Amino acid sequence: MSIEGNTENLTASDKESGKAVYGAEDKKIGSIDCVMIDKTSGEVAYAVLSVGGFFGIGDDHYPVPWKLLRYDADLDGYRSDISGNRLKGAPKHGSELFDWSARRAELDDYYNDEVIRPG
Amino acid sequence: MSIEGNTENLTASDKESGKAVYGAEDKKIGSIDCVMIDKTSGEVAYAVLSVGGFFGIGDDHYPVPWKLLRYDADLDGYRSDISGNRLKGAPKHGSELFDWSARRAELDDYYNDEVIRPG
Repeated sequence: MSIEGNTENLTASDKESGKAVYGAEDKKIGSIDCVMIDKTSGEVAYAVLSVGGFFGIGDDHYPVPWKLLRYDADLDGYRSDISGNRLKGAPKHGSELFDWSARRAELDDYYNDEVIRPG
Repeated sequence: MSIEGNTENLTASDKESGKAVYGAEDKKIGSIDCVMIDKTSGEVAYAVLSVGGFFGIGDDHYPVPWKLLRYDADLDGYRSDISGNRLKGAPKHGSELFDWSARRAELDDYYNDEVIRPG
């Protein structure tokens, strides 16, 4: 029943790093690099997906709204309705940090009409 | 205006680790070890505070409800109304992982009547 330090719904944020994310075609589209927390609301707002590269070198980073990901306990990873092509056209960054102040609106616009996970 | 990768309200979860937490008497009561995410709701549910020890060796870990912490941008740390004594009596663990399945109810009970941050 009990998984130490990690109940079914609860996870340490640093344990999510590296977990696979599967897209609309059931293919892996990336892995979790980190999650972004809105400190005011206390909610996780975005996940940053790492895509491509080689052990973290040369990979691209795609911030996506957290609500577009659904945790799948069987996979111990995430599923999303975002297709690989949709992700490719999305706001991203390389090894530098994402400029949230300048690009957050652009990012939210891009994913504005995506399917929202139920419930 | 812009802090790269970190707007006023948004922070990467792995950047919170090590940040100081000040308690009711304005004294440091610990530092953030990690945050616990409820994967179903997408909300941060708890922060685990590291207390005492020496560079992470021999420290105790106290999970506390995330809503009892308020981010303070001037400090780049957190404030809480939890006193040092209140924290000392709270559910904690050492170097082993916290057994969330067994102890989550006990933890929530302990902090049930604490001051909730406004808004």
